[in-house]
Formats: sequence, structure tokens, C-alpha cells
Amino acid sequence: MQGKYKALWLNDDDFYEYLEVIDQTKLPFEYDTKILTTTDEVVRAIKNMTVRGAGVIGSVAAFGIYIAAIEVEGDYEKLKEKANLIRESRPTAVNLMWAVDKMMELLKDSEDPEDSDALAEAALEFAIQLNDEEALESQKIAQYGCDIIEEILKKKNKTKINILTHCNAGWLAVIDEGTALAPIYEAKRRGIDVHVWVDETRPRNQGASLTAWELAQSEIEHTIIADNTGGHLMQHGEVDMVIVGADRVSASGDVANKIGTYLKALAAYDNNIPFYVAIPASTFDFSIKDGVKEIPIELRSPDEVRYMKGVDDEGIVREVLITPKDSPAINYGFDVTPARLITGLITNKGVCEADFDKIQEKFKRENI
Amino acid sequence: MQGKYKALWLNDDDFYEYLEVIDQTKLPFEYDTKILTTTDEVVRAIKNMTVRGAGVIGSVAAFGIYIAAIEVEGDYEKLKEKANLIRESRPTAVNLMWAVDKMMELLKDSEDPEDSDALAEAALEFAIQLNDEEALESQKIAQYGCDIIEEILKKKNKTKINILTHCNAGWLAVIDEGTALAPIYEAKRRGIDVHVWVDETRPRNQGASLTAWELAQSEIEHTIIADNTGGHLMQHGEVDMVIVGADRVSASGDVANKIGTYLKALAAYDNNIPFYVAIPASTFDFSIKDGVKEIPIELRSPDEVRYMKGVDDEGIVREVLITPKDSPAINYGFDVTPARLITGLITNKGVCEADFDKIQEKFKRENI
Repeated sequence: MQGKYKALWLNDDDFYEYLEVIDQTKLPFEYDTKILTTTDEVVRAIKNMTVRGAGVIGSVAAFGIYIAAIEVEGDYEKLKEKANLIRESRPTAVNLMWAVDKMMELLKDSEDPEDSDALAEAALEFAIQLNDEEALESQKIAQYGCDIIEEILKKKNKTKINILTHCNAGWLAVIDEGTALAPIYEAKRRGIDVHVWVDETRPRNQGASLTAWELAQSEIEHTIIADNTGGHLMQHGEVDMVIVGADRVSASGDVANKIGTYLKALAAYDNNIPFYVAIPASTFDFSIKDGVKEIPIELRSPDEVRYMKGVDDEGIVREVLITPKDSPAINYGFDVTPARLITGLITNKGVCEADFDKIQEKFKRENI
Repeated sequence: MQGKYKALWLNDDDFYEYLEVIDQTKLPFEYDTKILTTTDEVVRAIKNMTVRGAGVIGSVAAFGIYIAAIEVEGDYEKLKEKANLIRESRPTAVNLMWAVDKMMELLKDSEDPEDSDALAEAALEFAIQLNDEEALESQKIAQYGCDIIEEILKKKNKTKINILTHCNAGWLAVIDEGTALAPIYEAKRRGIDVHVWVDETRPRNQGASLTAWELAQSEIEHTIIADNTGGHLMQHGEVDMVIVGADRVSASGDVANKIGTYLKALAAYDNNIPFYVAIPASTFDFSIKDGVKEIPIELRSPDEVRYMKGVDDEGIVREVLITPKDSPAINYGFDVTPARLITGLITNKGVCEADFDKIQEKFKRENI
């Protein structure tokens, strides 16, 4: 089937007209899906984080353009208005804007006055193409990353690998197996015994909720740990490698990723443990050199630190305040790990050192 | 008044017969106290963590011996049995055992067949003496630590200091102003503008609950942060120094403290930020040299990671599950920070480098 991915898929009951997505706001407490049949529903799903994760937002947006194209009955000018609504559904999501712009560019000659279905048919084709390309990138990352896993096992003369990851960079975030988790899924396919240390990833707990849930679905052995625990495990030989994703990588290989990544990189470096960052090549931002100084860090609501969501003993999802009522909190969403702490970048174009010249040589000249 | 400390005090309504303690299980959601009038109540208060923190447990135990001495009406042999119940109320608490043993040693000649009150009167005197000594140690740590704060401000030519701390090493933990927080309280007394970054300290959240609450009571400016955040703040000049407490310090200055301390020490080192450990000299364990290899680390219940306690919007304290139902978790209570990452040890005997020879010279010869 075309257009069938792990976090979203086209419903073929009715000739591909409905997009269905996993409702990520309910995870890990409940597995539920949502059917998106209108532009408004797509916009709402992105806004209220029914779908999240840079890649997946872009994927949903691409299919959202298809849904919008059905609604406007082949009128490209009207589609532009709908596209704008989707494009603005989350203001800082780079992939979202990129996917919408790319779709609209591809579709600009697809209007056919003789055939009101033509625009939607083309949109469907391009959306699937875009997502299949992304899935292929994920597959490449899986292969290159898993080759490294095999090397590490060979070098250590071990049969089981312990990998630590931070946040969620799996198939709930990027079509179709994610970035950081893709090599882990590939390892399972290659018959490698793999165990994942899942950083809880406070304050939004993407590790304890999404990554743990995702790994369980794929029957990958894993253990949730408080974010404080990784250093101790590394000191005691319990971690063979670290793989994380990234939101942005500077021209010199500095990596902006979920807050706390830098602390794990320091601990890995201190204990001689390989620290890898898995990214599609599109993650590079060549306009930035010194990531620590130049990448702006999103300041999010303090309530994400002050409140915690969970399920009570009656199965009801509740949010509870975990700090004194009047204590202030501050909530930086990301931090930047300097290139000097990173062993390598696992990309869809191969593995590259986190080094200005090496990155320029491999990626800049190819104009990716 | 004798025997009046911040986390516990003797109730003089009835001629010193009742020990009153802050119920720490209810913090930060509710301030409540508990009156302990029998050995059983003392044992229960320690067991169920109504009182916690190495020092405070020892303090309560010392007064517990006094309460037990009233119950046994001056019979030292019977007191021994009661003392054993208190001694075993938490199996790994070194201060608890030390306090009980010390009290029983001091009391061994206090039985007076002519006066059934003599044993209890002596116990009261010794318990106050022990606690006043501990309070004096805390005071010394406050002074030496605050001198360092003043030096840092002078060197940086700043008037406001930002201190990061991990876990709770304040007056809820150690009589009578704690260890790590004592210099901060002293700074306030000296009129220094001080702001504290409070690490949440997952999984038991002692920072977000106890330290934040304690600092608020003392009107110290503070901000709660996820444990993941400290590295980012240090990279951006937002942290002038780190002060933490310790559970055990090896002969060479390796520090066992709450899990996650090591990660903060790495970040401080990477950013040239002074990292201090505040301890009474009794925290040294001279039988251990390599702390990372030799200090055993307590493995606690995975449910501390999987569940979170907070207060819902109706003010009801609830525990909610924050992970997938079947996901395993692991919960190491402490980690060990190697001496090489530590700027200095702030002790009641003065400040000392975290170095084998320096520690031997300063502490071992004095036989502390």
C-alpha cells in the first residue's frame, strides 16, 4: 500500500481520502488514532500536538495539502489560502514550512481546468513521494548507524549492545523509523541483541512516554532512567554508545537538541563512549558556525516543569503540580552540544565527523 | 529555648516531653507537623520518611532515645531494646546508627536506681548537646562557604551570585541550616544578593519539592529547573558556582551524592565554574580510596521513576503513572563525582582541596 507509515497513513477504505494519525497526546496511556478529513482538522491536529516531531509534522502537512486540494476542487489559488493555514499551524517548525512550500512549488502547474481532480491527484502523488523520500533517508540512517553498532560490538568482542538515547527521535517523530532510533530497529532486523537506556527527558518526558512506548511496540528491550542516571551508567561500563537526534546542526558540527543532551555528551566523552548524532542532511544550518553562541534556544512555559501528566489508579489522565505553588521555574527547550564532544554524525549520506572542513566537503558542495 | 531547630523541636508545653517534627512527606503541598511521644512513633516517623535527610534522621534518633528513656523509666537494659528498634528503622542510614550508638555510649553510666528520671534527664541533655554540635558544624560550613561566595563575587566584580544546587542539603536534611544551603543562608545574612538554581532532582524531586520550599520559607530568590538544564545555563554564564552536599566522601575526595551530581560536575568543569561540596568532616570514609569503584550505590524501587506525586486542581495529593504500564525502569540513588572535577570541600574544619594528601593532612591526623 502507498502512503502507509508507522505514525500516519492514508485510509484506503474510501480511495485514499482520509489521513489517519496516531494521537500522540494520549500516549503512552492510551493508543488512539484520529482521522483527518479537512484542512481544519489537519491544522488542529498540528496545533494541539496530536501529531508532533519535526519530521512527522512535515509529513502530515504534505498530506494536508492533498486533503486541502480535494476541498478546493482543483483551484490552485484557493489551495494557496488553505496551504497558508497549514503552514502557520506551528510557527517555529522548519519542516512544516518546508513541506508546505515544497508541495505548493511542485503543484504550481498541476491545475487542470478540464479535470477538477487533477490537482488532488498530483498532490497525493507528491505527498507520497515526499514521504517516501523521507522514509528512504531514515532507512539510510538506519543502515549507516547499524554498521557502527556492528563495529563497536566487534571491537569490544561483545554480542549485546547497550545504547543510551535522549528524547524521542523514532518513528513517532520522523517517517518512517526516525533518526536516532532507526539504527536500533535495523539492529533488531540484523539479529543483534540490543538494549536501550531511555532517558526520561524532563520536562516533557518524551523519553519516558513516547520512546519507551515506541520501543515496546517494536519489541526492543529497554529501560527507562531518570535523566540524572546516564553518567553513573557510563562510569560503570553499562553504556556502549549514545545516539541522539538533532533539531539543528551548525556548519561546524555543533548540535542543538533537546535540553540535557550536552550533559550526556560530556559524560560520554569523560568515559570514552562513542556519542553519535543521527540526522537527515537537511538538518544542517550552514548559516551558523558557532552553535553554542548563535543558535537561539526556545524558552517554553515554566508550567511544563511545574506540572506533570500521568494516569491515576483509576486510569484517569491527570495533571498534577509537583512544585510549591508559588515557586518560579524556567524551561529552556534545547541545549547545544559542541562538536568537540561528538564522535560522528550519522546522516542519510553516510557518517561524517563533526568538523567544519569535513562537513563542508561532504555536504556543502553537494548543496544539500 | 533548648532543643529548638528548624526541622524538629522539643515541645515545652509539657516540660520537654514531646518531640515535634515537620512532616516532610506532605511538603511542598502542605505544611504540617507531627508530635512524637513514643518510641513506636519515632520509629514509624523514620520508616515512613516523615523525617528524612541524613542529619535530621540522626537528630530525631537522638531525641528518640530520650523519649525511649522516659518510657523505660530509667532502666538502661530496657532502653537498649528500644534503641535497637530506632537503630534499625532505616537500614542504610549511617547517621542514624551513629547517633543511636553515641547516645547509648554516653548514657551507659546514667542509670540511677534512686532516681527513675535520671536516665531520661541525661538523655535529654546529651541529645541537645549532639544536636547543638551538629548545628555548630552547619554554622561553620556556612561561614567558610560564604567566604568563598564573597571571593567569587569580588573576583568577578559582581554584586549578585547565581548558585546551582542539586537535591536537598538544607535545614530539612541537616540541623540546623544544612550543608550545601548553609552558605546561602549566611550570604543572605551578610546582605549578599543571592539567587539559587534548584535542580528538580528526579526521580524523588527533593529539589523541586524540599529545596524550593525551604528557600521560599527563608525568602531566598530561586528558580526550579529540570535536571537537564544546568549545562545550558553554565554555557551561558548564568551559574557562578555550584554547591552540593554529599552522602560519603572517599579518602581521595571522590564524592557520593544524589544521582546526577556527576553530570553537573562535568558541566561545571567544562565551563570553568567552581564546584564545591559542603560536608561535615564526619562524611569522610577513610576506608575507601577510589570512590567510583568502591562506593556501593543503592538501587531503589523503579516505581520512584515510574510514578510522580503531585497535587491536582482540587488540592488532592495524587500519585500518577508517567510511563507505559509495562515499561521497566531502573533507579540508582547516587553517583560518584571524581575528585578531579571538584574545586573544593567546604567542611566545618575549613575548606580543603579534594585531594588525597591534602585530606589526609587536614582530617586523618586529627582522627575525625
